[in-house]
Amino acid sequence: MILLYDLCAGDPAVRFSPYCWRVRMALAHKGLDFATEPTPFTAIGERLAETSATVPVIDDNGRKVRDSFEIALYLEEAYADRPSLFGGPGGRGLARFLDYWTLGTLHPLITRLVVKDIHDRLGAADQAYFRASREGRLGGTLEAVQAGRDERIEAFRAALGPARATLKRQPWLGGETPRYPDYILLGTLQWPRVMSEAALLAADDPVAEWFERCLDLHGGMARAMPRAA
Amino acid sequence: MILLYDLCAGDPAVRFSPYCWRVRMALAHKGLDFATEPTPFTAIGERLAETSATVPVIDDNGRKVRDSFEIALYLEEAYADRPSLFGGPGGRGLARFLDYWTLGTLHPLITRLVVKDIHDRLGAADQAYFRASREGRLGGTLEAVQAGRDERIEAFRAALGPARATLKRQPWLGGETPRYPDYILLGTLQWPRVMSEAALLAADDPVAEWFERCLDLHGGMARAMPRAA
Repeated sequence: MILLYDLCAGDPAVRFSPYCWRVRMALAHKGLDFATEPTPFTAIGERLAETSATVPVIDDNGRKVRDSFEIALYLEEAYADRPSLFGGPGGRGLARFLDYWTLGTLHPLITRLVVKDIHDRLGAADQAYFRASREGRLGGTLEAVQAGRDERIEAFRAALGPARATLKRQPWLGGETPRYPDYILLGTLQWPRVMSEAALLAADDPVAEWFERCLDLHGGMARAMPRAA
Repeated sequence: MILLYDLCAGDPAVRFSPYCWRVRMALAHKGLDFATEPTPFTAIGERLAETSATVPVIDDNGRKVRDSFEIALYLEEAYADRPSLFGGPGGRGLARFLDYWTLGTLHPLITRLVVKDIHDRLGAADQAYFRASREGRLGGTLEAVQAGRDERIEAFRAALGPARATLKRQPWLGGETPRYPDYILLGTLQWPRVMSEAALLAADDPVAEWFERCLDLHGGMARAMPRAA
């Protein structure tokens, strides 16, 4: 049984980390049994100090692996007989590009749309840590950063352009079947879905239609995490 | 012998289309013998009217295939015993994403940096066609669109962020070996290299270092096309 250290909100049942969702989906894709350990930001240091300053971390019978992409690479190699996450070496290579594209292009835009909402759903100790660290990075209060988001949603939707164009041509980013690249973008969109009531996607967006199909994968695992309300 | 209808400048030896370069590299990657037919914009209609309004088009012993991505898919399937362009189905799926990313993110930026330079290197008939069609699309004269480009080069370099981050982690976009995704971005950068004296990349940029390695592939095929001077 694999244990996943999974970031949690004030309600420990609420899991929202885009990087942890990638790993949850990857574990399910491989058909592996796993449990999750709800882990607030401020508990990572104590629980995982020797391994990582961030989650996700997996513990596979004593072998600890950190970083979502490294975990995906580990699972692909350690469980090579299970369904492939990357669909070959070319897919593994380009998945790195998609990872950096979401991180550099989408995550900064999403952060400025929902950072105050995320804060509000964290536990008290995490709220203090989150406010201090994010306000330092973002150069303003969480309230100021998120203010006026309605005017910024179109820019976020425009930034999804390459994914939208791809999903008009094929059912999954990974091609004919869902693969790790789909889990990368799923995690990115699950993060605001779980932590904010803001509607980031228009209902008729091909990306929204693909996201709904992602939520249904692996027994509806991602859909089982309720939308923020 | 495969024939590639290849966009040419006023000097028919000068080939600059980003899409045609992708196909040239793909043909070389597969180790296929091919010849090229230099084709100005204004000759496409007459020569290929029944097949396509754009190049690249290949003629593989009577079978005509159009559109760079469709040609890559065709070559991968028709010459499956040769080195793979995509490195498996996952790479084929994500290559579509990279194709749309270059088209939607990089190409508009590059166009506004070098469109007048491209015009100036075309033949007379192509110049008239190019000016009329591009000025309509771009909403200004070619001169006005390109003016002040020095202030826009940094934005172009910033847009390469996901490729730069990937190439810091692995030698090729396709992973450990060059694949079609590398030829996609090579074509995108070969286009201004051949048609403009503007230095779009800083010499110490990891993307520039990767580009130099791309120019050396397949016997230095892309480097053999001289830089604009």
